[in-house]
Amino acid sequence: MNDTYTPINEVGEFALIDRMKAVLDAPEDADVLAGIDDDAAVYRIDGDRVHVVTTDALIEAVHFDRVFMPMEYLGFKALSVNVSDVLAMNALPRFATIALGLPDNVSVEMVEALYRGLKHAASAYDVTIVGGDTTAARFLTLAVTVIGEAGEQNVVYRSGAQPGDVLCVTGDVGAAYAGLKVMLDQRRAMQDEGTAYQPNLEPFHYVIQRQLAPLARLPIVQDWAARAVRPHALIDISDGIASEVHHLCTQSGCGALIHAATLPIAPETHSVADLFAEDVDTYALFGGEDYELLFTLPDDDLEKLDPESFTAIGLMTEASEGVSVQMPEGDIIPLPFTGYQHFEEEE
Amino acid sequence: MNDTYTPINEVGEFALIDRMKAVLDAPEDADVLAGIDDDAAVYRIDGDRVHVVTTDALIEAVHFDRVFMPMEYLGFKALSVNVSDVLAMNALPRFATIALGLPDNVSVEMVEALYRGLKHAASAYDVTIVGGDTTAARFLTLAVTVIGEAGEQNVVYRSGAQPGDVLCVTGDVGAAYAGLKVMLDQRRAMQDEGTAYQPNLEPFHYVIQRQLAPLARLPIVQDWAARAVRPHALIDISDGIASEVHHLCTQSGCGALIHAATLPIAPETHSVADLFAEDVDTYALFGGEDYELLFTLPDDDLEKLDPESFTAIGLMTEASEGVSVQMPEGDIIPLPFTGYQHFEEEE
Repeated sequence: MNDTYTPINEVGEFALIDRMKAVLDAPEDADVLAGIDDDAAVYRIDGDRVHVVTTDALIEAVHFDRVFMPMEYLGFKALSVNVSDVLAMNALPRFATIALGLPDNVSVEMVEALYRGLKHAASAYDVTIVGGDTTAARFLTLAVTVIGEAGEQNVVYRSGAQPGDVLCVTGDVGAAYAGLKVMLDQRRAMQDEGTAYQPNLEPFHYVIQRQLAPLARLPIVQDWAARAVRPHALIDISDGIASEVHHLCTQSGCGALIHAATLPIAPETHSVADLFAEDVDTYALFGGEDYELLFTLPDDDLEKLDPESFTAIGLMTEASEGVSVQMPEGDIIPLPFTGYQHFEEEE
Repeated sequence: MNDTYTPINEVGEFALIDRMKAVLDAPEDADVLAGIDDDAAVYRIDGDRVHVVTTDALIEAVHFDRVFMPMEYLGFKALSVNVSDVLAMNALPRFATIALGLPDNVSVEMVEALYRGLKHAASAYDVTIVGGDTTAARFLTLAVTVIGEAGEQNVVYRSGAQPGDVLCVTGDVGAAYAGLKVMLDQRRAMQDEGTAYQPNLEPFHYVIQRQLAPLARLPIVQDWAARAVRPHALIDISDGIASEVHHLCTQSGCGALIHAATLPIAPETHSVADLFAEDVDTYALFGGEDYELLFTLPDDDLEKLDPESFTAIGLMTEASEGVSVQMPEGDIIPLPFTGYQHFEEEE
């Protein structure tokens, strides 16, 4: 037995992962091109083609509240978040496996609904669900693995950003966090006012949809291939822009300056921030689970992209300049390396 | 919302999986050679090579009791059970991902110990752990995915058995269940007699080892390749021989007759059954988690195998003859399609 007991929240997730890697001690494997440091691992399958693989688990009471998460959406989201990690390598998703942990209070019909969501997502992403595992559990648990493919030369890592690159993001950001805020608020109201309370979620349709059923950006990656554009660096937004930009900078040996005024934010996300009298830039920078793609590429390549498909939000700089954000008012402040807190810590 | 609520235990695991498959509705994918019906899914990666992929989760309070499961063993076992599924396709394991759910009461040092076990297993099986996911959870959860490779012509499915094939098993059976019996008994004693109780597990070293740290049979599959032997049908023993033989028979359209007197049972497994005044054949036929390989092949091929590596335990028959066992006393009885019950149901 070990005498020392260090709580995990004392070292944090990233230091924990570093300690895991130290124990594994980076085994030599000539076929493995990327491992734990990126959105997905990359391994060679023949001369010039690679597969990428990623696993993410969604666990009840940590990642979702069953009251607000219809089973269809849960299935859809579980596949989407893993497909997003495959896309974040500039690879196309192909196969998936599902490990399902089922507590007593989940019915056969609920499992069927979950699988309808998985099937819907599999169709949307052209993924084949090839296998799985079903077991008992105390809390509903859904661990999904997705395998994708790419040409070895087309894979984009977190580490490829260069000073002078433009930092871009697809879609809009902060909406999934706004959706979470609304749902947590409604849950509190239900708890305070009892079961007779009727939540009115209609005005928040967009942000709730972004939280419950995010759509991974497959068409963007397909469009890049069609236009023969390859970003220098790429990551998906699961923990929030601030956290992801820090990952890009750390892996690439760069700094970054984000212009907050350029962050793409949906009108409904603004409305939610106003409703809670909060700063919408905080949602956009630190909210998680948008599953947009954050990428860098040289200024000259911008014109090759579909202008509707992205927003330029900043510039990659020398590492010595750190990671900063210029606020809409003009002042430049360091961007903290903090991100999304899961459901359970929200209360 | 769905009006019907059917508890899962009312339909059982296999009917549930059938209903999942019905929802997924067997998408066409020319590259997928086998899916949910086998130990692992099989997909083509180039002209004549395939990958196989399998996912299995180990969940605290369902699959293991942390009091009796040192973290190193848990890591070792989690990889072993998945490697065993890859071997059960006659494929060699190559890559693994780990999705880890950590409750508050797991320390950094415990995670490091878990990873030492994973590393130990990865070295034993020549597997590279390429990635993972770490998240909060209410119960310790470990979902492992293993990807293996094989020549397309070398893959062995559950469905290939033919009447007249000899049914064989590697190693010995029932030991993991005997180990579980001992540990549950000791746990009850601890609960009855309080924390001062000192369990004496020394006489049960072998069976406990088989329960806590099963070793998947990689050398057997390597040896088959070296001898150019390919079984007709193959499955690993996770739920017990009875259950696995039924799977082979269902998928192959065969019957089977097992000779109980030939079942390979370790002396210590006999001792445990005697201690609890139970029938050791029940352990051997219905105990689970042995992670031995159960396979069929024509009589003529038996002499090509290393005679130390297997035991012939029966014969595949016509489907009309059903699945039966000849007891040591000589009477032939139908073999029920029941298997291993997880930890939680044992009490």
